[in-house]
Amino acid sequence: MPDLIKSYQEVFNGYLKEKVRSSEPSGLYDPMCYILDLGGKRLRPVLTLISASAFGINKDEALDAALAIEVFHNFTLLHDDIMDEAPLRRGQPTVHHKWDINTGILSGDAMLIYAYQLFETYPEDIFKPLMQLFSQTAREVCEGQQYDMDFETREDVTIPEYMLMITYKTAVLVAAAMRMGAIIARTSEENQKLIYDFGKNLGIAFQLQDDYLDAFGDPETFGKQVGGDIIENKKTYLYLKARELASPEVANDLDHLFSIKPKNPVGKISTVLEIYRETGAAEATREAIAGYTRETFEVLENLELTGDYKTLLRSFAENLMDRKV
Amino acid sequence: MPDLIKSYQEVFNGYLKEKVRSSEPSGLYDPMCYILDLGGKRLRPVLTLISASAFGINKDEALDAALAIEVFHNFTLLHDDIMDEAPLRRGQPTVHHKWDINTGILSGDAMLIYAYQLFETYPEDIFKPLMQLFSQTAREVCEGQQYDMDFETREDVTIPEYMLMITYKTAVLVAAAMRMGAIIARTSEENQKLIYDFGKNLGIAFQLQDDYLDAFGDPETFGKQVGGDIIENKKTYLYLKARELASPEVANDLDHLFSIKPKNPVGKISTVLEIYRETGAAEATREAIAGYTRETFEVLENLELTGDYKTLLRSFAENLMDRKV
Repeated sequence: MPDLIKSYQEVFNGYLKEKVRSSEPSGLYDPMCYILDLGGKRLRPVLTLISASAFGINKDEALDAALAIEVFHNFTLLHDDIMDEAPLRRGQPTVHHKWDINTGILSGDAMLIYAYQLFETYPEDIFKPLMQLFSQTAREVCEGQQYDMDFETREDVTIPEYMLMITYKTAVLVAAAMRMGAIIARTSEENQKLIYDFGKNLGIAFQLQDDYLDAFGDPETFGKQVGGDIIENKKTYLYLKARELASPEVANDLDHLFSIKPKNPVGKISTVLEIYRETGAAEATREAIAGYTRETFEVLENLELTGDYKTLLRSFAENLMDRKV
Repeated sequence: MPDLIKSYQEVFNGYLKEKVRSSEPSGLYDPMCYILDLGGKRLRPVLTLISASAFGINKDEALDAALAIEVFHNFTLLHDDIMDEAPLRRGQPTVHHKWDINTGILSGDAMLIYAYQLFETYPEDIFKPLMQLFSQTAREVCEGQQYDMDFETREDVTIPEYMLMITYKTAVLVAAAMRMGAIIARTSEENQKLIYDFGKNLGIAFQLQDDYLDAFGDPETFGKQVGGDIIENKKTYLYLKARELASPEVANDLDHLFSIKPKNPVGKISTVLEIYRETGAAEATREAIAGYTRETFEVLENLELTGDYKTLLRSFAENLMDRKV
């Protein structure tokens, strides 16, 4: 099974390399090639290809939609990195650091348009639903990013609001990636809805797992700095849950800790992690992840798929949730 | 005739007011409403409506495409204002000054996506060509903006390069606005191409006239500061033509003047204007404007339109070129 996913990644990366080439004006297109070349797991496009296969067509028919999803995803990373003033992306300089902010803005715009253009290979009757889903999803991703920025300065964020934010910012694109495979395969509306729900629950579980690993990941294997969200006072699920479960005194401590940015954050991180554990927030987060993962399995049951693909998607979800990176 | 255009402007503004409303998250959508509310001539959307009427359908059928064009145009203004660090737009604070740069980037992204969504009211067989034209045009507008930024630091810009830049940055959107009316009216491919060419020549003439007025406009009626391009050392058609026609000594003077930004620019402006006149660059620019305007008339002759609309479009072009603002 992991072999199949690896082979899909390779097919996708080969297609990307072949299709995405710089051209004039290079100031516009070099940054696009650069960010797409930084690599990554290619999670979303691979899911588009798997979905297409699972609904009975050749995965190659879904390559353009898969590429559109990946180009769009990298467009959001490019513009988000400007907004977050991030210097690095996958260990390399971000586009606005390597070039400048104006280049980042304009290249990102061109990438969004290029993503739309990639759908033009599909016939009219498939083209329109693909575009509608893509636009709807893209709008939601922008809304998710806006909520995320709004939350930075808000003290009264609720867990349902947080769930909506990560659903929009992360999960709907995973969901749309899978539904696109289903649309291209011309499967039933019911199957389209189910695979969308599968992807949405998977995306939510994936993001919660990201939050969890940022706090409790193994520094040896995690890749990023463990405790980064705590250092940045980011209101994650762990924080909001701890805030909810804590006694008034501990909640006060937590509020204080999330109002400071000490030069040496080691002590702050360990205190916050202790609060996350002792309030039960850590366990509640693990349960939430397991809950959304179970949801994906339940959706799978109702899907009209051959048994092999059910097994594949199930273990794909399990692997994502067991990951350490 | 001006009455008809005025009535089209009013219909369009009414439609925009009705359709474009803010919603949650307001940080994303308030800036969109704000910039669209700043007004303007609504030149492009009105041309979409005129084109639809001219090819025999009710202009109302073209309102969504017209709105998409205007939303897209304002998206480009929003992101361009960030890149140009412009504090004012139509006498009001620009979005990134009223809010901040991050808001400007993200709201702009949402506007581009919203523009795409506005085409969703059209049936599949029209939807696809509209989207293809829209994406193609949007890409060219980005390329034009990139060339414009590249030219700021290049000393060897040629007049053909400049013409390509303004064609992409300005003219293709006018051309696409008109072709969209023709697509919606389901007129012949030949008519679609001709109305596109009409719009493109009109757009080029319009931009050259803009350059000319920036230098030689009447300060009483022009609205913007006369000489703004000279103050900013902007390489316009006037500058490039003067550079081409000037003697080596005068070319040297011009190079020097375009390398400085004196606190009091009055002397610089009057010297540059004198060079523009004496080299014949001013007259050459007037001739170029007249030439592109004549091109629009010739294209009109080959178009299958009722006589009334030919007259309307002809006087529309004449009025644009005779404008003082």
